[in-house]
Amino acid sequence: MPTTLPKPYLLFLGDETEVGNVKTSSGIAFWRSEQCVGQISLDGGTVDLGLPQVTIAQAKEAGAKTLVIGIANFGGRVSENWMPVLKDALRSGLNIAAGLHTQLNNVPELVELAENYNRKLFDIRQPEQQFNVGKGNKRTGKRLLSVGTDCSVGKMYTSLSIEKELVARGYNADFRATGQTGIFITGEGVCVDAVVSDFIAGATEVLSPDNETNHWDVIEGQGSLFHPAYAGVTLGLLHGSQPDALVLCHDASRETIEDYPDFPIPEFGDCMDFYIAAAKLTNPNVYFVGMSINTSKLDEDSAIKYLKSLEQKYALPCCDPVRTGVSGIVDRMIELT
Amino acid sequence: MPTTLPKPYLLFLGDETEVGNVKTSSGIAFWRSEQCVGQISLDGGTVDLGLPQVTIAQAKEAGAKTLVIGIANFGGRVSENWMPVLKDALRSGLNIAAGLHTQLNNVPELVELAENYNRKLFDIRQPEQQFNVGKGNKRTGKRLLSVGTDCSVGKMYTSLSIEKELVARGYNADFRATGQTGIFITGEGVCVDAVVSDFIAGATEVLSPDNETNHWDVIEGQGSLFHPAYAGVTLGLLHGSQPDALVLCHDASRETIEDYPDFPIPEFGDCMDFYIAAAKLTNPNVYFVGMSINTSKLDEDSAIKYLKSLEQKYALPCCDPVRTGVSGIVDRMIELT
Repeated sequence: MPTTLPKPYLLFLGDETEVGNVKTSSGIAFWRSEQCVGQISLDGGTVDLGLPQVTIAQAKEAGAKTLVIGIANFGGRVSENWMPVLKDALRSGLNIAAGLHTQLNNVPELVELAENYNRKLFDIRQPEQQFNVGKGNKRTGKRLLSVGTDCSVGKMYTSLSIEKELVARGYNADFRATGQTGIFITGEGVCVDAVVSDFIAGATEVLSPDNETNHWDVIEGQGSLFHPAYAGVTLGLLHGSQPDALVLCHDASRETIEDYPDFPIPEFGDCMDFYIAAAKLTNPNVYFVGMSINTSKLDEDSAIKYLKSLEQKYALPCCDPVRTGVSGIVDRMIELT
Repeated sequence: MPTTLPKPYLLFLGDETEVGNVKTSSGIAFWRSEQCVGQISLDGGTVDLGLPQVTIAQAKEAGAKTLVIGIANFGGRVSENWMPVLKDALRSGLNIAAGLHTQLNNVPELVELAENYNRKLFDIRQPEQQFNVGKGNKRTGKRLLSVGTDCSVGKMYTSLSIEKELVARGYNADFRATGQTGIFITGEGVCVDAVVSDFIAGATEVLSPDNETNHWDVIEGQGSLFHPAYAGVTLGLLHGSQPDALVLCHDASRETIEDYPDFPIPEFGDCMDFYIAAAKLTNPNVYFVGMSINTSKLDEDSAIKYLKSLEQKYALPCCDPVRTGVSGIVDRMIELT
């Protein structure tokens, strides 16, 4: 696994006042609060993720290994007013991890301190490993990949929900992260959209290596085969993952590809047929085990009706991970294997 | 266009004795001999591309702007014994271009000399430009993309042949290079397999910008949608190119994907259907205008019979660019537009 972040984390929230700007941090707090010793904000910061508010010293005392900058600020830069806390963290023996546009490893003051204190700066959007091209060999163990009608339709959330449900039922399963937030959550993974395009499939093969026969890798999907900018990433990930099972993710409020109003959301049947046709190259036995729909913009009645109508039309378990949970999908996964 | 190489070229052949090791150079000499002032070899080098054998001084005198290292040597390194000639070239006012694994810009002696003499070192596998994500907007002008059943089946050769035929008939056409040899031949282009995967489609959009209504961009394809390692590159290129016309390229001697014996060459009809289904996302009016087959391993009779049988089966012009030329395909392009 190319990137492995030492845990537990201290979540750094800067002086942010909107939870939307710390989506990565809030994802970590939601999915892995037990791996966060606390949160730390600067003066003026009002975001609260429900974790203990701590100082660097207290975080270190509580066992924190890595300060995580899960902030999407304007321009993706290391802000000047973060520097005192970041330096204090390094001096206190913490590593720092970020997925900013500006690399931590390009900030000389941080690089020097990290060297002096033998700490690491993790730029998780920069793959550390040199990947090989894909091999296409069948690997042992089982794999599920979440795929989408579009970007940002809940593929990470769906995959984490499925992993959680599998583990709760006593199955051996691992979430495999392919994007920034997922990597912070699980502590390892590959930011596939940052990989040089020759190596997309190869990088994804490394992400879900051979495993025990009954082990499930639950792989976070990226993009969509129907996205005019990102379909290449999606196809490479699909081939490298060689999934046994696919889940189609969708946002019920979406009618066109986000930010691409000329590109309609594909009809679900056509969409699944195309995913299957593409996925068969590296796993001829691939099948869909369900649909995972973000129905947050619908009221309860409409949402349940919508999910039921999809179940009937496509003969697949259809759920909203937040509203209904993913047990129907997990039932189908287990039933079919 | 991200990479533009100053022409004419001086082709540097090192001490190579096998033409297979200077495939890039021989491609340049074959397709653009009028843009090469000559070739230069080291002691022991026996490869002859049919160009005048010149010294650096003679090349400069003849107007050469760039020394091209079109050599695929072991490890892709800058060999120590090349250095005197390379240094002499920089001192004489030539730029140097290479597509080696080791970057010219990582060789301190060359970097220093290039700076002193105000020359440039072109590492054409390293995109110089920061690309944007794809937009998917319809662009003006016409586009053809060569696609393949596999890698290395003649996509570049086919595209260059079609461009040549179009120009010979008085049409306005440009070959658009997407790989190393193609970039050297045309002097510009984007090495798409070296682009970060988020930007494959975006980079390809830049490659074939808006143009006059009757202008043809003849775009060099890469990889194959049926290749377990490279299909992501192919799909990004397909979407970014938004081709009006596709040509399916194949090597008649190939039964499985090269170096992937478990992956059969797809049936041509299925293969074309899948390319069309994928390409429709960014151009719903896309169609195939022909098949281009490398029949070099067949004798003349078998080759002609094979091409004829394909023509009948798929109702498309089928040619071998070397054996028969591509006029049938160009006829169809013109007929349909």
